[in-house]
Amino acid sequence: MKTILTIFFIFSLLSLSHASVVDFCVADYTFPNGPAGYSCKKPSKVTADDFVYHGLSAGGNTTNIIKAAVTPAFDAQFPGVNGLGISIARLDLAAGGVIPLHTHPGASEVLVVVQGKICAGFVSSDNTVYLKTLYKGDVMVFPQGLLHFQINGGGSNALAFVSFSSPNPGLQILDFALFKSDFPTELITATTFIDAAVVKKLKGVLGGSG
Amino acid sequence: MKTILTIFFIFSLLSLSHASVVDFCVADYTFPNGPAGYSCKKPSKVTADDFVYHGLSAGGNTTNIIKAAVTPAFDAQFPGVNGLGISIARLDLAAGGVIPLHTHPGASEVLVVVQGKICAGFVSSDNTVYLKTLYKGDVMVFPQGLLHFQINGGGSNALAFVSFSSPNPGLQILDFALFKSDFPTELITATTFIDAAVVKKLKGVLGGSG
Amino acid sequence: MKTILTIFFIFSLLSLSHASVVDFCVADYTFPNGPAGYSCKKPSKVTADDFVYHGLSAGGNTTNIIKAAVTPAFDAQFPGVNGLGISIARLDLAAGGVIPLHTHPGASEVLVVVQGKICAGFVSSDNTVYLKTLYKGDVMVFPQGLLHFQINGGGSNALAFVSFSSPNPGLQILDFALFKSDFPTELITATTFIDAAVVKKLKGVLGGSG
Amino acid sequence: MKTILTIFFIFSLLSLSHASVVDFCVADYTFPNGPAGYSCKKPSKVTADDFVYHGLSAGGNTTNIIKAAVTPAFDAQFPGVNGLGISIARLDLAAGGVIPLHTHPGASEVLVVVQGKICAGFVSSDNTVYLKTLYKGDVMVFPQGLLHFQINGGGSNALAFVSFSSPNPGLQILDFALFKSDFPTELITATTFIDAAVVKKLKGVLGGSG
Amino acid sequence: MKTILTIFFIFSLLSLSHASVVDFCVADYTFPNGPAGYSCKKPSKVTADDFVYHGLSAGGNTTNIIKAAVTPAFDAQFPGVNGLGISIARLDLAAGGVIPLHTHPGASEVLVVVQGKICAGFVSSDNTVYLKTLYKGDVMVFPQGLLHFQINGGGSNALAFVSFSSPNPGLQILDFALFKSDFPTELITATTFIDAAVVKKLKGVLGGSG
Amino acid sequence: MKTILTIFFIFSLLSLSHASVVDFCVADYTFPNGPAGYSCKKPSKVTADDFVYHGLSAGGNTTNIIKAAVTPAFDAQFPGVNGLGISIARLDLAAGGVIPLHTHPGASEVLVVVQGKICAGFVSSDNTVYLKTLYKGDVMVFPQGLLHFQINGGGSNALAFVSFSSPNPGLQILDFALFKSDFPTELITATTFIDAAVVKKLKGVLGGSG
Repeated sequence: MKTILTIFFIFSLLSLSHASVVDFCVADYTFPNGPAGYSCKKPSKVTADDFVYHGLSAGGNTTNIIKAAVTPAFDAQFPGVNGLGISIARLDLAAGGVIPLHTHPGASEVLVVVQGKICAGFVSSDNTVYLKTLYKGDVMVFPQGLLHFQINGGGSNALAFVSFSSPNPGLQILDFALFKSDFPTELITATTFIDAAVVKKLKGVLGGSG
Repeated sequence: MKTILTIFFIFSLLSLSHASVVDFCVADYTFPNGPAGYSCKKPSKVTADDFVYHGLSAGGNTTNIIKAAVTPAFDAQFPGVNGLGISIARLDLAAGGVIPLHTHPGASEVLVVVQGKICAGFVSSDNTVYLKTLYKGDVMVFPQGLLHFQINGGGSNALAFVSFSSPNPGLQILDFALFKSDFPTELITATTFIDAAVVKKLKGVLGGSG
Repeated sequence: MKTILTIFFIFSLLSLSHASVVDFCVADYTFPNGPAGYSCKKPSKVTADDFVYHGLSAGGNTTNIIKAAVTPAFDAQFPGVNGLGISIARLDLAAGGVIPLHTHPGASEVLVVVQGKICAGFVSSDNTVYLKTLYKGDVMVFPQGLLHFQINGGGSNALAFVSFSSPNPGLQILDFALFKSDFPTELITATTFIDAAVVKKLKGVLGGSG
Repeated sequence: MKTILTIFFIFSLLSLSHASVVDFCVADYTFPNGPAGYSCKKPSKVTADDFVYHGLSAGGNTTNIIKAAVTPAFDAQFPGVNGLGISIARLDLAAGGVIPLHTHPGASEVLVVVQGKICAGFVSSDNTVYLKTLYKGDVMVFPQGLLHFQINGGGSNALAFVSFSSPNPGLQILDFALFKSDFPTELITATTFIDAAVVKKLKGVLGGSG
Repeated sequence: MKTILTIFFIFSLLSLSHASVVDFCVADYTFPNGPAGYSCKKPSKVTADDFVYHGLSAGGNTTNIIKAAVTPAFDAQFPGVNGLGISIARLDLAAGGVIPLHTHPGASEVLVVVQGKICAGFVSSDNTVYLKTLYKGDVMVFPQGLLHFQINGGGSNALAFVSFSSPNPGLQILDFALFKSDFPTELITATTFIDAAVVKKLKGVLGGSG
Repeated sequence: MKTILTIFFIFSLLSLSHASVVDFCVADYTFPNGPAGYSCKKPSKVTADDFVYHGLSAGGNTTNIIKAAVTPAFDAQFPGVNGLGISIARLDLAAGGVIPLHTHPGASEVLVVVQGKICAGFVSSDNTVYLKTLYKGDVMVFPQGLLHFQINGGGSNALAFVSFSSPNPGLQILDFALFKSDFPTELITATTFIDAAVVKKLKGVLGGSG
């Protein structure tokens, strides 16, 4: 081992003088983002804290009527995932809880049930419906961009984590897009064939206008 | 120029002996496809016809009640676009015609109006609705995976071509996913808050079950 | 339906607090661009107009001798396509019009004929020439980076729209690269085997130097 | 609503005749795989079961000396994630359990702690070590290809799920690469400066040769 | 160290049972290729030889009139690079040697001069010409899809290695595309404005027809 | 040819008014970088010098004990490769020289031997070791993210160039990550099973702490 002492004496000469660490790109929110994500924080200012997110440790507030909550750790919340092709979120479903029909325009999703029983499903482009009841430890994948949902299938709280193949998967909730927006009722009716009266009632509930 | 005659005498020695042409990958439908598309036809069997599609030259049949037709030239129909990151389709909208709310799970779309007047729109993840009336020659882009629609905004036929950032963009029509499938009514109601009666009526019309 | 009124009372709790809309990245030309495109405009400043481009509605000026015009709607002109993997352009060919041999270094192209008759072709890496005469409604695909051209094949105006698998496909016109540049004549001759006299004549015409 | 009945009478004419569903590519293991993954199962043979994986519901066997287990749901085990850019695995760490230093050559990783306390860390290219102690619900991201580890930081069982930005992230365990392989001892010593005696001892333990 | 002996006794339990090695995809030429490359050889049949290519060790034959040779190690020749996003080739230029104007439709190129003096250049989309004289050890990058060339700038042999950002970069040599093909002379003239007489003379030399 | 003179009189009308050249993105180091690389220098300020790098023309300093040097031309050193998916480096190995075990977290590598004899190898995820002795002109590929090394296999200087499938491949040297960092000794021992005494000795040599 003694020779090694000598061996490394000038070993640091090998060291690259690359000023920037290229392994990651922790989001710097002070610059405008681009198509590939946010600008990178200077490596010298990056700490271990940038790679950890505590926001999913507490359950989301499910004391609402849908009895459910989605808590995201996307690149807008969790700077460490910026540019890395992955992100995560937490789903809390109280008894009777429902995550309404939605899509992630830019990512596929993998769900793992941590607690409880969840009924989940998605619809493919050829209108086939894929439904499964999932138990603790079960995993389900939802292919990119397809309509899907999760419902608490049991009598007690359910908890799941969902991961995405993008740091910014997006989330388009069908009911919100239609009834919590200013999407003109006549256009909704024309493009969904749902009666105007039904549309207006749901808009009244959700706060949409038009 | 005479010297050139000599110059190229053995010029073909430069020629690469690469057995396969790597510039394109015309779809060979006889093998199973993969995540990146279909297998490639042998270059020796590829002809100019593989790169041309005639299926969009005739208008789609709009003598239906929605008075509209979508005619795709995706990789499943048009072998030349396989693997090339692009495809195209034709939209025909007779007077009163409507392309119902839909998404393309795997692609962004650019529409160009060739004839008539089209009202088009999409909804973003934060439930903002972007609506425009488009005239001949106008172009509109619909970002990947978002709900959008097109309606004939005039009194005569409208024609548009839509291009996609993928050879297989997919097409999920909202009404078909919900009401032309075997998506159980109680799950639709639970995940969209649309009354079961409304769901059943639309299913009756569209042929859905469950 | 009444229960729904209650149901959604606190429904907005589900809403994500993501400050940025991640579905698109409308180009903000005031910042320098990057390898993936331009910086994103703040979502709050984005309007429907950002997703629509009117610049292709009028025909390009073909009262030149090549009797043709290319009008692009790339990300540099059309901010809405920034980052979305697609763009479009308009080709106008008067009688006798020609789009000279060119390549798009970064994209494949799909052409659809809207009016007239167009003779188009491309050459593959193994020097095979793929030629077709295209009529109204015909579609042709030109694989990425290969030399191709379009010629008006009829006696009247022809119009086509061409879409690209990139928001910034690039456009390298062979004659311009050689004869409208300061590419030294002796280097052109050495690397193309075209006589210096021919090169100089074409440079004289096109305005090249060297 | 009555009119709708008529409206949809011929609505199915809109339906695309695309023979294949392009939304997903469930792995068909009977064909050789390619750079983008496995071939796709025919859509007609795909069922909801293809999108669900039960193999993570039971804890891995930690009655070994490292008191830990990694149970993957990569594309080789879970056909539904093939081609979708994401996968998942389960980490079980009994008291004193350790997941030794390793890399995933082709993916970034997001870990979420479901039970217990985990000490985790990674080393960047500039030899900075990022260490954190994680509690239930905490999330940590490990950028692609970097050396990292997880250790049970508490006195009881710990459980975590780790997601990857690829359906086939790979897993290279440092000790196995060096000491459970036939990597010649003299080459290990030459390229790591670890004494041959140390190498041989570890090889003896792990079963390596050479 | 003794405890370690025990430690690893059942250590192999950690081992993943993944049947396939996912780190690479050595080309199996017996199956048709796809858009992402060739099918993968079974890992059990892969040897170190698959990752090594000897075909570049001998200089190409430059006893032709252009006094140059390109020897590729693309995925069609070198199975180990299949799917890995990189390939390499060797350029030999005898005194007076020239690699004529060409493009790589699907890749950027980095050249390093190993012997001699090379004059190289490329033309950008805005017709700017970038020229440099390169000496031993100099590196030059040629952005994807742009016309470029290399000429021996000295009186003795020159040698360079060129790497590509794709395992199948393609190679379109301008003169071959025009004059060694069956590209009809009248179409060449119409799309390049080079006189038919010049075209025919070059075709005669290179063996083109039409 | 006379007619051509007229032909091009207004030919420049075809010219696109695209303000930015989109073919490349020469790094502008004055702005923060992003996930896809550095911001682009304005095209008007780009010169041929931006595409050439002289830093590899001189051998690295091998008068150290490992008798080896790595000289990178990544995007941080060579602005021309920014965003182009490729980069290069130079390896100098004096007699007895060694490039210690390392990975490139974000790229595959192709090596070509220019001088001397090199013994190289890598280890796959299933702990297979692929070893080869390489001579002048031999090429070897190292798949992304896997541990690999190079050793001078002869009695005289060896020189190789290594290309990468990314402009910023990263470089993680195993010994540096472990022993030249502040990686706590007890964590190294726990996650590598290398004795603390061995770890401390190597840390002493390399300058690590903890």
